[in-house]
Parts: sequence; structure tokens; C-alpha cells
Amino acid sequence: MPKLYWEDFKPGAVAIFGPRLVTREEIVAFAAEFDPQPMHLDEAAASATLLGGLAASGWHSCSLLMRMICDGFVLESASMGAPGVDEVRWLKPLRPGTRIRVRGTVLEARASNSRPEMGLVTHFFEVLDDADAVLTTLRSTFMIRRRTPGARP
Amino acid sequence: MPKLYWEDFKPGAVAIFGPRLVTREEIVAFAAEFDPQPMHLDEAAASATLLGGLAASGWHSCSLLMRMICDGFVLESASMGAPGVDEVRWLKPLRPGTRIRVRGTVLEARASNSRPEMGLVTHFFEVLDDADAVLTTLRSTFMIRRRTPGARP
Repeated sequence: MPKLYWEDFKPGAVAIFGPRLVTREEIVAFAAEFDPQPMHLDEAAASATLLGGLAASGWHSCSLLMRMICDGFVLESASMGAPGVDEVRWLKPLRPGTRIRVRGTVLEARASNSRPEMGLVTHFFEVLDDADAVLTTLRSTFMIRRRTPGARP
Repeated sequence: MPKLYWEDFKPGAVAIFGPRLVTREEIVAFAAEFDPQPMHLDEAAASATLLGGLAASGWHSCSLLMRMICDGFVLESASMGAPGVDEVRWLKPLRPGTRIRVRGTVLEARASNSRPEMGLVTHFFEVLDDADAVLTTLRSTFMIRRRTPGARP
């Protein structure tokens, strides 16, 4: 049974998920499969790019964020999925050997107009390194089952 | 040497990339690593969800799109990377056994104000199935080197 329902997500709430150490091997493996640009595969080629050295694919950063929030709260919530994501920003490179965490801030929680059993929760997620530098951000809205269907918030 | 520079991306141009057959095995493998929600891992659990059956993680769809556009044009372009992505929309589930393609439409191509050697190209990308149903969409801006730095467009 889920522990967290729509009612449990309060605007302004902040939580930290992770940490996770990101290795060179996984950066290169992800890039080889999904984003085989030189800056994600090879140190020498990467040093000549805007990234200034080997760094993870932005899609890898997003996927790692997803895994950390799955383990952090999504899997124990009554999540019904997400219709999409907005404003993904790859602000700083994610380097091999970086220990990352995710900071999640609840921006909004509103009832669904069409589905009384469901609410919508919008988060702002930030991937942070050990010095709290913000590497990646995105905004995401989950559909989450309500503990009390149809009740007014 | 790159074949495609900023000048080669004309607003309104449309191209198709792929196809690629997406297997159950890769859907489950991606989900197990990055998005282990039941709807991406197990048919029985998935059938009880809004997706109505096993479907790929939205991040997997995005990563597959990235691979298809890498093979389609990014790797032969003078791309300098991307600062992020906007308006990712997971419109329809990506099912095992679907043959997908990507349709890319150039929305805008503008010179950089700050960097005379660089231009910006904004695409609208759509992941299509064999019946041309649109499964996933996103908007993305690449930084791309100019063939003629500093020239007015």
C-alpha cells in the first residue's frame, strides 16, 4: 500500500534524496547507448568542447534524478505517472566521480478538475553536487491518487 | 569535419530519423536502472495503471529520441551542446515491439548575441509510431557552430 497520497505534498516542502556517486563507467555506458557525442565518451575529445572535459549526457542526469526520486518517494507514493516535464536546464557539467543529491521542492498541489480520485503535484527538482552547486534543474507534475477522493482540499 | 553548421538549419525544415524497434527487454532494462515503477517493469502491474499495460519510462523515450537524432544529424553537425529542453510531453505510451521514428521540425535559427562563432537552433521533436501517432514531443535548442563566424544571417 502506498504511504504517500496527494494530500501529503504541501507547497513549500523541501526534501533531499540520494546521495549517489556517479562513475566514469556509467557516464560512458549511458552515452554509448543513448547520446554518443564525443564530450560524453572521451576525455581528450571532451576537453576541446564547451564542457571542458568529460561529463554526463543531460539525459543521463535526468535519468539519475528520476531514479533518486523513485527511491526517495515516488515508489512509496500513490503516483499515477506524469504527463511530461518542463524547463529541463543543464546548468553545469556532471563529472565522473561526483556525488550527487536531489533537492525536491513542492511548488503546487491542486485537485484535478476532471478526476475526483486524483490530484496534481508540481515539483522543482535540482541535482546538486557535494558543494551544493546546482547542476541540473527541472519542473515536473505528477498525477497522484487522493487519500480522500473528491474531498475539497 | 562536421557537415552541418548553423547556416544549414532552416526554419520550417522537417526531417525524419530512425526507425528503431523498441523491445520489451530494453524497456524493462532501462526502467530497472532508472525508473523502477511497476508500469515500466511488469505487465500485470502495468495493466492496473493509467498506462493500461507495460510501457517505456518517459525518460527512456527521451533517451531513444536523443540516440535517433544523434545518428540522424547531431553527430555530423558542429553541435556545441544544448542548455536544456522544454515542454517534454509523454502523450501516448511507448509499448514493447513498437517501431518508432523521430520527426524533427526546425522552429527557429538565430545568431548568438554574445558569441559570433555560434548560432542557436530550436527544434520541435516528435516520437512517432508506425501509424504516425505522436507518442512523445519536446522542444530543444542546440548551440551550433557557424560556418562563417560573425556574419549576419
